[in-house]
Amino acid sequence: MSAEQEVLERIARARRRAPRLREERITMAHGAGGKATQTLVEALFLEAFRDPLLARLEDQAVLGLGAQRLAFTTDAFVVSPLFFPGGCIGDLAVNGTLNDLAVGGARPQFLSASFIVEEGFAVADLRRIAAAMAAAADAAGARIVTGDTKVVQRGKGDGCYVTTAGVGLVERDVTLGAATVRSGDAVLVSGPIGDHGITIMLARGDLDLAADDLLSDTACLWPLVDDLLEVAPGVRCLRDATRGGVATILNEIATAAQVGVVVEEGAVPVRDSVRGACELLGIDPLYVACEGRMVVVVDGADAEPALAALSRHALGRGAARIGTVGDEPPGLVLLRTQFGGTRIVDLLVGDPLPRIC
Amino acid sequence: MSAEQEVLERIARARRRAPRLREERITMAHGAGGKATQTLVEALFLEAFRDPLLARLEDQAVLGLGAQRLAFTTDAFVVSPLFFPGGCIGDLAVNGTLNDLAVGGARPQFLSASFIVEEGFAVADLRRIAAAMAAAADAAGARIVTGDTKVVQRGKGDGCYVTTAGVGLVERDVTLGAATVRSGDAVLVSGPIGDHGITIMLARGDLDLAADDLLSDTACLWPLVDDLLEVAPGVRCLRDATRGGVATILNEIATAAQVGVVVEEGAVPVRDSVRGACELLGIDPLYVACEGRMVVVVDGADAEPALAALSRHALGRGAARIGTVGDEPPGLVLLRTQFGGTRIVDLLVGDPLPRIC
Repeated sequence: MSAEQEVLERIARARRRAPRLREERITMAHGAGGKATQTLVEALFLEAFRDPLLARLEDQAVLGLGAQRLAFTTDAFVVSPLFFPGGCIGDLAVNGTLNDLAVGGARPQFLSASFIVEEGFAVADLRRIAAAMAAAADAAGARIVTGDTKVVQRGKGDGCYVTTAGVGLVERDVTLGAATVRSGDAVLVSGPIGDHGITIMLARGDLDLAADDLLSDTACLWPLVDDLLEVAPGVRCLRDATRGGVATILNEIATAAQVGVVVEEGAVPVRDSVRGACELLGIDPLYVACEGRMVVVVDGADAEPALAALSRHALGRGAARIGTVGDEPPGLVLLRTQFGGTRIVDLLVGDPLPRIC
Repeated sequence: MSAEQEVLERIARARRRAPRLREERITMAHGAGGKATQTLVEALFLEAFRDPLLARLEDQAVLGLGAQRLAFTTDAFVVSPLFFPGGCIGDLAVNGTLNDLAVGGARPQFLSASFIVEEGFAVADLRRIAAAMAAAADAAGARIVTGDTKVVQRGKGDGCYVTTAGVGLVERDVTLGAATVRSGDAVLVSGPIGDHGITIMLARGDLDLAADDLLSDTACLWPLVDDLLEVAPGVRCLRDATRGGVATILNEIATAAQVGVVVEEGAVPVRDSVRGACELLGIDPLYVACEGRMVVVVDGADAEPALAALSRHALGRGAARIGTVGDEPPGLVLLRTQFGGTRIVDLLVGDPLPRIC
């Protein structure tokens, strides 16, 4: 075994250990979607709730109810600012939850909407948020059928938090999931990555930067998923690349399936404005959230028709094949850089871009 | 028409007008479950989402999916303090959502759990909350199958907010709802009211008061509902009496069914400690929240077996018949006081007991 292989093996072994939550206090990193979130979820919530459906760690639970298969999911949204180029917390909250259904192969049906509003929040802004939610649900053919509103004192919230839950129908005989991925599969992304995360960072005005052409990519991916599943029965796993970005998803897949994922850096589609902002921020675009892009892992034999199906669709413009699944190194993601080197792509550590969704 | 009747008629007319949201800013009253909440929901959310299932204004949406009827609901929980005698935000969040299913006649099945945690929150407290949720779900035979966690900066939350959504199965051929109530029905409550709300107020320590015997009534009502529906097919409407209390629910029923509800003050079960605290606070126990009590409206002919079914059950100890539904005055709730007088019981105005759930 070479020195390099030894290192990889040591890391992979560490990854397989049961996670332990060492912190006594919650930090922003626990909400970033990366390593700390994973530890929190596994060591605290999975441990407490002990449910095999939850333990799958997919974006949705698929429930057998009589003859039907329902998908069920929830997400809380705490994005700051509430309004940003290309969207607001309202469409984000609808699309985000619908996407968690869509990547489970479920046609979106019903949504719940729950609001935690800070005293003093402008009614006009709440109206804009509700209108955006209604428009996003309409566009996706989903209905908002139940809800709740709570108000907290000034200084106990941040304007408005929105939590949505969704119910969808899995109509096809597919079982998608990270654990089904195997050696020989291809890894695709449905379009340029990082637009949403960088849009939010720029909208905060913390950076002395502007990108006139940059908008959040928030969108419901179901139409794209629907087309994709129609032409590519070899699709194994879909994930929308939100918190933690594409890198985190690929790590989750590598861990769940105990496969090695190799990504070609040069093949990853990133807009110039996103790449420029990432360089200034010192972060890798692979960790930046999207809200309307997904990672597709598909049987290598179906990679071409799958990529063609994505590319035909407006939501899949700029789709690309970015990597390959192999047997080695099990549980790890490697990046082949444009200069011919190779490095490990780890789970996101810390929280460089807090509250982007 | 007598002067009194004229006043009643004028009020009833005002109630039938489409609500208008006049405030420019959200106030605590918008979260209290009373008049301001109703206006916010009808003038803003119903207006934006325009869905007939939502417009029913029940605690849950009942969805036809193939051969099955599913109930779907959500609630956000922002209770302060997070831990109190008899429970914590965790069991409250599970029981509250399961009760919204139960009062729709649905057997609880699946839950989602979404957390908005403030940076710096103690991991041990989050563990206690999760353990309480697991225990409450287990006790009710429900499973927590999907979830989400977000972290917000210190000062942008208040420890931990929990939003749950629930899916249940409506197995019986019943359609419960406020609009089905009619003249001649009886109004029951399943036990002494106000325990939860007063427990929370005392736990805050704002009052120089203690009541050693007082605990939150948080509980899942499904077993009680299940027994009740078995023996009393004449049940028209069930509502768990949370924010806004029994008074608000009766008003919602009076409005939805355009009936008059007459409540006998002397028949309403209230513990001495709750009554004492209410007197000090200057509030009527009819407006104080419970988290494990429900209002039952049942065909008068079924009132006795219904009351007997409630009383047989541990969750229904102290159940009582508190009133009667008549034709007059349509849309209003009247209280016959213990001194022989009559007064209107309006929707809750303002927010005397903020963040009790």
